[in-house]
Amino acid sequence: MTDPASFTCRPIGTLHTPWKTPRDCPRNGRQPDPPPVCSAHIFADLVPGLTSLEGFSHLILLYWMDRAPQPLLTFTPPFDQEVRGVFATRAPFRPNPIGLSVVAFDGFTAPDTLAVRYLDCVDGTPLLDIKPYLPSTDSEPSARMGWLDPHATRNRNTGL
Amino acid sequence: MTDPASFTCRPIGTLHTPWKTPRDCPRNGRQPDPPPVCSAHIFADLVPGLTSLEGFSHLILLYWMDRAPQPLLTFTPPFDQEVRGVFATRAPFRPNPIGLSVVAFDGFTAPDTLAVRYLDCVDGTPLLDIKPYLPSTDSEPSARMGWLDPHATRNRNTGL
Repeated sequence: MTDPASFTCRPIGTLHTPWKTPRDCPRNGRQPDPPPVCSAHIFADLVPGLTSLEGFSHLILLYWMDRAPQPLLTFTPPFDQEVRGVFATRAPFRPNPIGLSVVAFDGFTAPDTLAVRYLDCVDGTPLLDIKPYLPSTDSEPSARMGWLDPHATRNRNTGL
Repeated sequence: MTDPASFTCRPIGTLHTPWKTPRDCPRNGRQPDPPPVCSAHIFADLVPGLTSLEGFSHLILLYWMDRAPQPLLTFTPPFDQEVRGVFATRAPFRPNPIGLSVVAFDGFTAPDTLAVRYLDCVDGTPLLDIKPYLPSTDSEPSARMGWLDPHATRNRNTGL
């Protein structure tokens, strides 16, 4: 039985990208070459929460993929021939459509606006959280990618 | 003005850890040595979504920190002397208390139960999402840690 509890998320701002519809989006944020500079706009009342963000080269952005289709627990990806579980993919049609991107942080263009690269979401996507990226806990360069290994976009920074 | 839109998250399962209260939790999942094996229990109706998860060595878990204090936009961390914005920290008292851990995945102990290491949350924390960790998009071993640099827990795998 699914637990009946639920939790309410509220946007903290809005993501701006060049992609107007889900069809336009790249497969992931590292695919475009060069990756376009996108922006994260934070609501004015939350700007104090950005104090000391300068100095981090990378951030983790969490966002609500509000234009994702209805959740699907299993599906066959377009570049694959087997049925995969949605939790073994990064597909947007998840039970909780929370997207996650590790982005390069290029600094502030205004006190409420961050310049970032490596987003892959639709323009106007509601932002839920900004976290500093910490290589000490977040970087696993040797992680094995299971069924996705032959399909992954290579990381141009590490060559992985 | 904060956007009035809101979104509803529902747990997909429950995390089990050795820590019964927020006070008991380690500073992060890499701090305990050795890190205890924790578990992620998925609700029965969502188990098909786990298909093909075996083979990934690491996962990203998102969870709702339901015992976090009320959000605080700025604060002085216990190991610091300056005021920091909450978005420049991994503190739990965020506008949307969504926690994120990159965990080592040690396989299934039952069809609905994953063994994982590197969690740092309270026992019983509601799980929101499981994503495969992809070094191609998620690993930035050289990321700069800004103000947190002198305080970070070292990563025993990479020496960073």
